[in-house]
Amino acid sequence: MKAICLHGKPVGNGAQPLICVPLVGRTPEAIIGEMAVILAKKPDLIEWRVDFFEAIANPTTVIEIAGRIRKASGPVPILFTCRSVMEGGEPIPIDAAALVRLYVAVCGSRDVDIIDYELSHPVDELAQLRQISRANDVAMIMSYHNFKMTPETAILEGKFAEAERLGADIGKVAVMPNSPEDVLTQLGATWRASEAGSIPVIGMSMGSLGSVSRMLAGVFGSAVTFAVGDSSSAPGQMPIEDLRIALATVRRSVLDG
Amino acid sequence: MKAICLHGKPVGNGAQPLICVPLVGRTPEAIIGEMAVILAKKPDLIEWRVDFFEAIANPTTVIEIAGRIRKASGPVPILFTCRSVMEGGEPIPIDAAALVRLYVAVCGSRDVDIIDYELSHPVDELAQLRQISRANDVAMIMSYHNFKMTPETAILEGKFAEAERLGADIGKVAVMPNSPEDVLTQLGATWRASEAGSIPVIGMSMGSLGSVSRMLAGVFGSAVTFAVGDSSSAPGQMPIEDLRIALATVRRSVLDG
Repeated sequence: MKAICLHGKPVGNGAQPLICVPLVGRTPEAIIGEMAVILAKKPDLIEWRVDFFEAIANPTTVIEIAGRIRKASGPVPILFTCRSVMEGGEPIPIDAAALVRLYVAVCGSRDVDIIDYELSHPVDELAQLRQISRANDVAMIMSYHNFKMTPETAILEGKFAEAERLGADIGKVAVMPNSPEDVLTQLGATWRASEAGSIPVIGMSMGSLGSVSRMLAGVFGSAVTFAVGDSSSAPGQMPIEDLRIALATVRRSVLDG
Repeated sequence: MKAICLHGKPVGNGAQPLICVPLVGRTPEAIIGEMAVILAKKPDLIEWRVDFFEAIANPTTVIEIAGRIRKASGPVPILFTCRSVMEGGEPIPIDAAALVRLYVAVCGSRDVDIIDYELSHPVDELAQLRQISRANDVAMIMSYHNFKMTPETAILEGKFAEAERLGADIGKVAVMPNSPEDVLTQLGATWRASEAGSIPVIGMSMGSLGSVSRMLAGVFGSAVTFAVGDSSSAPGQMPIEDLRIALATVRRSVLDG
């Protein structure tokens, strides 16, 4: 798998996928509490799912909290994400233009290292945030989520290719399997995208059936795998302790074998 | 996955694949020593790889050792296998006719519960051993191994279908992956065979890359997964302790999730 680079340097040891845990607090106090729990578990990456945050309509508060998260997290990079309702996120009280302004302000604060913006957003918004994030040395994930099913291989590979074509630093696909074969479809598409493309990719199957894909990330080219630090943000995320053991077993048997 | 039935009863708890460990001793003393190590690790199934046994040309000795293995193993079922050189086994000093006579004698002893005979043998031999094994209440695996590569899906599914058509109780496919995608091909073929067929199936990818398939057996329909108790019999087998932990993690996250 290709390593994720932030501020000109690769993150992680290059041998294992990064373990990312979400922050899903609704209040500043909840987020600070989560941070304490999460940091003790030593994640490689922390994702602030701002769609859960009740003060999302107030950019000043969002920036302030981003700063507090940054201060608390020390060297652990921060991923800033507002997941849309359509792709599994929480309902938010702001419109598309306000959301773009929020992302712009957050990039400008430089208190986050990566932003995630969905491929389903208009291309002009994607282009604007690409330009702003790059200008602020913030990396950009362009993502596709499907909580209902796993589209066919060509569609999944197309999403990764689209992310790269639109200038993303990282392409991400998270889909719901309805059979064990769907998990294989996702793993295959992620693997081929990691080989064929020039950017790192993140791929996962969600739900209980898909949880094996979270353990297999490193084998099938996914640069990041998501786990539960304090609370989960998507179905099928495993506790970070379990995932770390499973990743070590996979690595020992597969990569060193 | 479909459970393996022996003597009219399903083996195992139905929730996890059976863990089978091989006996690969060259002498009776080595085999007895291996048995002590293996039994302490509580496998679900023990495979005696008789192609490793230096007295294979002496049916009386083979039967005697089968009896000693049976006595030592107690309730743990015994699988009797002479893997051919073509399919990853050791060179043996007896011809095809003598090998069939050996299988017939071992079935007659009733000191084994299952025999494995490769699909590459002539159909009349497969038919003869099918009839003799059934008459002695010994189950029969018909198997396909490829230590060089992973054939395409249709060929793998064809091997499972052939095993069922020829009257096997269990179909088995073990193949070597040359890329992560090859592992997905095998897992998919095994899963579809477990759904489409009416007999239990065993599927695995070998080598270090394939070792993940040994952990995923239960998710993709394989009724048995092979591990190292004392010594390995094929590339990519993991220590039984590691495999048991990985299977438990997979089960907890996938099957109970």
